[in-house]
Amino acid sequence: MPELRKDPILGRWIIISKERRKRPTDFPVEDFGGSGGFCPLCPGNEVFTPPEVFSFRDENSVKDESGWGVRVVPNKYPALVIEGELIKEGEGLYDKMSGIGAHEVIIETPNHDENFADFPLEHIALVFKAYKERILDLEKDHRFQYVMVFKNHGRAAGASLEHSHSQLIALPILPRMIVSEISGAQSHFDYKERCIFCDIIHQEIKLEERVVCQNDEFIAITPFAPRTPFEMWVLPKKHASAYYSMDDQEIDALAEVFSEALRRLCACIENVPYNFVLHTGPLRSKALEHYHWHFEIVPKLTSIAGFEWGSGFYINPLPPEEAATYLRQALDPKK
Amino acid sequence: MPELRKDPILGRWIIISKERRKRPTDFPVEDFGGSGGFCPLCPGNEVFTPPEVFSFRDENSVKDESGWGVRVVPNKYPALVIEGELIKEGEGLYDKMSGIGAHEVIIETPNHDENFADFPLEHIALVFKAYKERILDLEKDHRFQYVMVFKNHGRAAGASLEHSHSQLIALPILPRMIVSEISGAQSHFDYKERCIFCDIIHQEIKLEERVVCQNDEFIAITPFAPRTPFEMWVLPKKHASAYYSMDDQEIDALAEVFSEALRRLCACIENVPYNFVLHTGPLRSKALEHYHWHFEIVPKLTSIAGFEWGSGFYINPLPPEEAATYLRQALDPKK
Repeated sequence: MPELRKDPILGRWIIISKERRKRPTDFPVEDFGGSGGFCPLCPGNEVFTPPEVFSFRDENSVKDESGWGVRVVPNKYPALVIEGELIKEGEGLYDKMSGIGAHEVIIETPNHDENFADFPLEHIALVFKAYKERILDLEKDHRFQYVMVFKNHGRAAGASLEHSHSQLIALPILPRMIVSEISGAQSHFDYKERCIFCDIIHQEIKLEERVVCQNDEFIAITPFAPRTPFEMWVLPKKHASAYYSMDDQEIDALAEVFSEALRRLCACIENVPYNFVLHTGPLRSKALEHYHWHFEIVPKLTSIAGFEWGSGFYINPLPPEEAATYLRQALDPKK
Repeated sequence: MPELRKDPILGRWIIISKERRKRPTDFPVEDFGGSGGFCPLCPGNEVFTPPEVFSFRDENSVKDESGWGVRVVPNKYPALVIEGELIKEGEGLYDKMSGIGAHEVIIETPNHDENFADFPLEHIALVFKAYKERILDLEKDHRFQYVMVFKNHGRAAGASLEHSHSQLIALPILPRMIVSEISGAQSHFDYKERCIFCDIIHQEIKLEERVVCQNDEFIAITPFAPRTPFEMWVLPKKHASAYYSMDDQEIDALAEVFSEALRRLCACIENVPYNFVLHTGPLRSKALEHYHWHFEIVPKLTSIAGFEWGSGFYINPLPPEEAATYLRQALDPKK
């Protein structure tokens, strides 16, 4: 069983995932299934993944066979495991917890060579709907406090399989980043009685210089203090703390802005590796006035080296105002 | 002039370093001077670096010429600049600050092909003494609150030059990681009236399972909640909050343990890329009862992908107890 361990000084949680354990000499090499090789995520190979927990598939098709558009399966090499009791223990000074959680793979398309950025809008919406359905289902399990949804695209961004997919991890704790975000947003709310993300959106719409694209419901911006060149955030304009509170029409609107932002990024930098991560409220939290769900898209361009490790801050060579200009001009040179 | 920008939600500072600005298409490729090419850090090429600010050199040798053992020069492409006034400004919701700071390169050896882990002990001690001298000098500049010292070894760990070197950055703010560390340590101290690092050292010495090596003055351990396989911390056994409070004899003792820990790491994984970062108290802070300076050595083995980005926590496939066993056995199979 994996183990969650807390750094006693920082309160930072680490997953020690013995299931993924390797001998020391195994580390440097990672597999990356080329398009010529065997792909366990392709249609026809369903038997090589654990049984699916969710799918959007053709009416007459059968579970764990082909005919699906989006398919969600447990990760074959999970960082956390679903079975077992959540046990919290001390060890002298230290705190640990059994590594209970869900670790699932969202196979975003049956087409091995299709990139997320090139999906038709309806298909991107389908992926976003799958995220929603899985979070709603995992919320019923009271051992979990948070579901993290993220995508690694490209080897440099940590993808170990080429076939387009994202992942989710249901956690028995609140990740530190969300705790920090919520507590920062709470301070602002206590002082101003306004959501800081709503304030940011209003200011960005007024200033225009960091806006990448928008429609009536969503906006994509380069944030004021981005960690990397071309970092982007996609936020709902209307205040909402939970991703899964979106209805179908809102998901379509999200797909439109998200897809455009990503296509602009890919037009700026060919084959750009990137991560995106959903930031949403804790499970079973009521609608929070001070927190605002959003996606953060972080291209993997500059190496995250010593300086970042020690400091928790980043050197970024590209001001976000210039990044936004490049992104706006990428598909439309007039802007 | 570079700019420091604060994320309004997290309080995370980012350096926007326009001096390092590139066009979008420039990002994916980074230079890595091979041993066959020209090296600006080699003896005889002193004219290709900015003038040295410190060196240990032969008695009869001349500044900015060969004859040095360790040489410190300003970074030619600095993330922060030394000249100018520290100006703090708001921009609507946002906070920013002029990017005043020092960014220096510690050229650790005149020998292009020699690795830090293979230096004689006296030479490692010389590098550590250079760190001390530079921090003491930069402390006199009241614009700076912190000096961060770090090393990137190997391309995967962010090194852009092959010739062995470390870097330091003097900052006008306290980095978030140090703020979090000090505040975590302060909570422990308030409750127990003991330094949490001293408590950790006592517990680790008693348990033995995570000890890599030690002498009378220093200890190297794998921490209880390590971010990556083979992460190691090197700590003074006697409580001290400031790195530069070490005398020459203590620096020699540090060099012994640090070098052994690193040689054990390199024996476990050939050509391992790694970062190490000095964690020390803020400049001009008095001796702090609750903070304890140390080095963190972080091998770069698993990719830092989506999961880490969003959560601030890490999946590590190797328990630190096993890592410590491998490390102890690496140079001495009996242990």
